[in-house]
Amino acid sequence: MTLPPDPGALTPGQARALFRGGLRTPTAGWCAGWAQANLIAVPKDQAYDVLLFAQRNPKPCPVLDVTEPGEPTARIFRGDLRTDLPGYVVYENGVPVAETADAAEHWRPDLVAFLIGCSFTFEGALREAGVPVRHVDQGVNVPMYRTDRTCRRAGGLGGPLVVSMRPVPADRVADAVRITARYPAVHGAPVHVGDPGALGIADLDRPDFGDPVEVRVDEIPVFWACGVTPQAAVMHSRPEFAIGHAPGHMAITDARDSAYLVP
Amino acid sequence: MTLPPDPGALTPGQARALFRGGLRTPTAGWCAGWAQANLIAVPKDQAYDVLLFAQRNPKPCPVLDVTEPGEPTARIFRGDLRTDLPGYVVYENGVPVAETADAAEHWRPDLVAFLIGCSFTFEGALREAGVPVRHVDQGVNVPMYRTDRTCRRAGGLGGPLVVSMRPVPADRVADAVRITARYPAVHGAPVHVGDPGALGIADLDRPDFGDPVEVRVDEIPVFWACGVTPQAAVMHSRPEFAIGHAPGHMAITDARDSAYLVP
Repeated sequence: MTLPPDPGALTPGQARALFRGGLRTPTAGWCAGWAQANLIAVPKDQAYDVLLFAQRNPKPCPVLDVTEPGEPTARIFRGDLRTDLPGYVVYENGVPVAETADAAEHWRPDLVAFLIGCSFTFEGALREAGVPVRHVDQGVNVPMYRTDRTCRRAGGLGGPLVVSMRPVPADRVADAVRITARYPAVHGAPVHVGDPGALGIADLDRPDFGDPVEVRVDEIPVFWACGVTPQAAVMHSRPEFAIGHAPGHMAITDARDSAYLVP
Repeated sequence: MTLPPDPGALTPGQARALFRGGLRTPTAGWCAGWAQANLIAVPKDQAYDVLLFAQRNPKPCPVLDVTEPGEPTARIFRGDLRTDLPGYVVYENGVPVAETADAAEHWRPDLVAFLIGCSFTFEGALREAGVPVRHVDQGVNVPMYRTDRTCRRAGGLGGPLVVSMRPVPADRVADAVRITARYPAVHGAPVHVGDPGALGIADLDRPDFGDPVEVRVDEIPVFWACGVTPQAAVMHSRPEFAIGHAPGHMAITDARDSAYLVP
């Protein structure tokens, strides 16, 4: 399938129909004004650990919605969580065993799905203010990195903090901080500005997830907590089963970006 | 035991020692600058429902901390949760079966304790700004009311929203809203300003919990979501066992009020 000419102009329902039809693509810049979300789905008996992990690590894991066991739909997502994302990763014992555009055959009747805030949600506000969002401009996936910062453990679940990175001109870093701080439910202000080495990131050009982007000479790498963190915890802690979104291939919700803007 | 002459000047450790010694008193105005919290403790197999109830009802149930099963201490509470609050209510099948200053004999090894934000935390900021806090001035417990608003259900847990009420001079209502909105983790902005009847409250002078306070002719009743809401859900939904704080008799934490102030 080919990309639509203007993905930013699509409604969430239109985008989800494309993904349900098999289109695989990162979703940054899609459906302007509509919030995007990370997915982590686990069997009901693992759901407390995931919810507590999120409570203890609110910066990477702001919970926007939680489904009833087996329900493939959520308050803020009136599509089918099993098919309407553009990409999924299926984990068994922490190992990715399938990457797919359709998770229906892997879904289990006892799965509880968590929708976790995504920083794509504040990218519209950044661009509106003239702060560049390089991965959107370059038409690639956002670069994401495992850090050497450890999340607070919850039951059997622990692992590293994952971050996304956007290069920001030095004279716009303050604006980027100020603007994103107003969206705490979708990761809020950056966790780190500058030296990647201080987060244990050896090489910006080799992200753990997504694609590398150009960092210009007048730009500083700025790092935000990332909703791939629960999947890194799954890979680290090896629970029996989980399904996540493919990093950067988000659930496009029926909630407005502005619903997560604090006054 | 008699009240100390200046409870506002005590440290959390000093206050907890008094409560451990048997002092029973509402805690509004105690330990200036230190955050206070509601308690709800349930067996581990009920903990997911409580945590999900909190996620779905963040205004009355902002979770500040969650203990490991059986642990009587928390990150933000370096005392003993079984003894260091000035009052507890023990529930069996949703019925209060004991009110006590010492919950140790009722505590179970599988209990998970949730510390939920309390609006006493922002009262210092209100008073600092010259907004009166009537129950503190009158030396009584804050009035709390069951409303006719229903919380979002989570598993077996549902019930009404409980609110606390403070009378605010009409020309200070805007300030009260603005100041408390900056503390979203301790209930934040009011849920309702004015007519108690619109919340299903028949008579302000007959609160469901705590004490009535004077509402002067130039004042408007202002209602904030209240962390007694999980106990109202316990009474409504009748899970097998739970322990809560006695309303208004809070856990005084080792976290600063300012830790919950957003920029």
